[in-house]
Amino acid sequence: MDAAKGLENPVEETLEAQVKAFFDSAPPLHNSGEITQKLNHFIQRNSSPSSARRIVCVTSGGTTAPLEQRCVRYVDNFSSGHRGATSTEYFLKAGYAVIFLYRRRSFQPFCRSLPDDPLLECFIPTNDSNIQVCEAYSEAVKRAIVDHHAAVAGGLLLKLSFNTIFEYLQMLQMIAMSMRNIGPRAMFYLAAAVSDYYVPWKEMVEHKIQSGSHLLDVKLVQVPKMLLVLRNDWAPLAFCISFKLETDTNILLNKASAALEKYKMHAVVANELGTRKEQVVVVTSAEKVTVQRDKSPSDNDVENPLIKLLSEKHATYIEDSSR
Amino acid sequence: MDAAKGLENPVEETLEAQVKAFFDSAPPLHNSGEITQKLNHFIQRNSSPSSARRIVCVTSGGTTAPLEQRCVRYVDNFSSGHRGATSTEYFLKAGYAVIFLYRRRSFQPFCRSLPDDPLLECFIPTNDSNIQVCEAYSEAVKRAIVDHHAAVAGGLLLKLSFNTIFEYLQMLQMIAMSMRNIGPRAMFYLAAAVSDYYVPWKEMVEHKIQSGSHLLDVKLVQVPKMLLVLRNDWAPLAFCISFKLETDTNILLNKASAALEKYKMHAVVANELGTRKEQVVVVTSAEKVTVQRDKSPSDNDVENPLIKLLSEKHATYIEDSSR
Repeated sequence: MDAAKGLENPVEETLEAQVKAFFDSAPPLHNSGEITQKLNHFIQRNSSPSSARRIVCVTSGGTTAPLEQRCVRYVDNFSSGHRGATSTEYFLKAGYAVIFLYRRRSFQPFCRSLPDDPLLECFIPTNDSNIQVCEAYSEAVKRAIVDHHAAVAGGLLLKLSFNTIFEYLQMLQMIAMSMRNIGPRAMFYLAAAVSDYYVPWKEMVEHKIQSGSHLLDVKLVQVPKMLLVLRNDWAPLAFCISFKLETDTNILLNKASAALEKYKMHAVVANELGTRKEQVVVVTSAEKVTVQRDKSPSDNDVENPLIKLLSEKHATYIEDSSR
Repeated sequence: MDAAKGLENPVEETLEAQVKAFFDSAPPLHNSGEITQKLNHFIQRNSSPSSARRIVCVTSGGTTAPLEQRCVRYVDNFSSGHRGATSTEYFLKAGYAVIFLYRRRSFQPFCRSLPDDPLLECFIPTNDSNIQVCEAYSEAVKRAIVDHHAAVAGGLLLKLSFNTIFEYLQMLQMIAMSMRNIGPRAMFYLAAAVSDYYVPWKEMVEHKIQSGSHLLDVKLVQVPKMLLVLRNDWAPLAFCISFKLETDTNILLNKASAALEKYKMHAVVANELGTRKEQVVVVTSAEKVTVQRDKSPSDNDVENPLIKLLSEKHATYIEDSSR
């Protein structure tokens, strides 16, 4: 019977084995108890019958794949986290509660108009050796602190951070499991730039790779396609959006359509590295919608129309699910 | 004649060719004019005959080696920049002017006791929708801004940032060239974790590497040993300190001694990943001095005794040079 099942479904079987190998090899999260507690509290708070909100998990920033167990070198995926941070602000505006799963030191919601190092660049000493905000940043700094505090203290924004691909996927799984019983009210907005390749923890050298030889040959294996696991097993009822980033426009839309089908996403947001802050294309099974940044000053992020569109699609999805 | 010279000195010839290949392949710095101007101004300001200061270039944080020209993936060297940021504070205390060459978003001088995201974590809104520092961070935040501002505005701290190994080495060369005419008054304190391997720019694929295959095989070549070029060509009179970080204690001191000799450093600071905030060993041709953190609260960084020791050695070096 098992053999027959294996023949019917060889791809799924292989993926399952890959996923098991990945998680078996991952170093355990050291604060998983605390994270679970925070998640449960957050989801419960936003699920009271009188005011049940939609909850979105926004992932943001790049993941790293360590090359050594006591990590000195790693392969990193570039991502500032600008998309995730900006989208989080618009999801909050649209009435969502947001679980913001972000790479440490990537962009934070409400802070993207500030310099890299806002404490040192936006404040100056006063004559009485106190401090004050520079005139030029006064409004932006105040708004960042007030709006961020309102979202966190109001129980609408939960921030969880990661560095490695191991941490990211373990936390994503925990979030998905916690969100299971809110059904279609859950959305996953997977804007993080996730490593495609990793070195299995147990195959890694323990110590720093020595730099004696002229050539370094690093062999990485593919990270299992967790999007499919998320859709099939972790959160089968949630509304799932993934991203496709390419530098080559010619292959972008085809790759987005392929991802939509392969991973059973509800939508794939296709963006090109050079123009990603100006326009994106939302690819669904029914259509391809180009979303452009409105250049009028009051509405100057492409994430504004993007989140509006996705929020509408999510609302329709929830309605359809309850029929 | 050229052939004979080549035979006499094959290693140097090879290094020279490697260095040329590296710089020929590097994408040009787009703001090099501005950097040169800042450097010249800074060095001149700290070299007036009445108050000529010693000037140290502190390098800090890890460098990245891009795997693609339009960079999505890169190999990164882990380093928070804690050593460089802390050392900068003690160099300023010891009367040095500091050129702080740091990886973007790594630790900054005067800020290491603050949380990762000081703006969002140290400030809260007040009732009148203004902002204030949280009680717990009040002193630390004030001191960071006041001390940092004093150093920068006083012309004693020049901060220059990099991301890639290409940016880092081009800027290090520019700094060394600018410091040439202050002779032995210059110090290089090379605490940055510099990539040992890179992909030559011209051999890189222009577009994002496609993730189709099960295995990714990345081949990197060795970065030329620029320490030797710094000592021999760029800044032959400067006092040069490099660092050796290992995770394996057994090989650490031997590797530090080997580096001292191979790169003609004046001292190599040997540190082990697990204990690097507690103790380091300063290796010179004459001795190996273990430097330990003093655990009394007023003097709680290993960098305090370390910079004292190196400052003394540098003073002796300057004296010896003028004889």
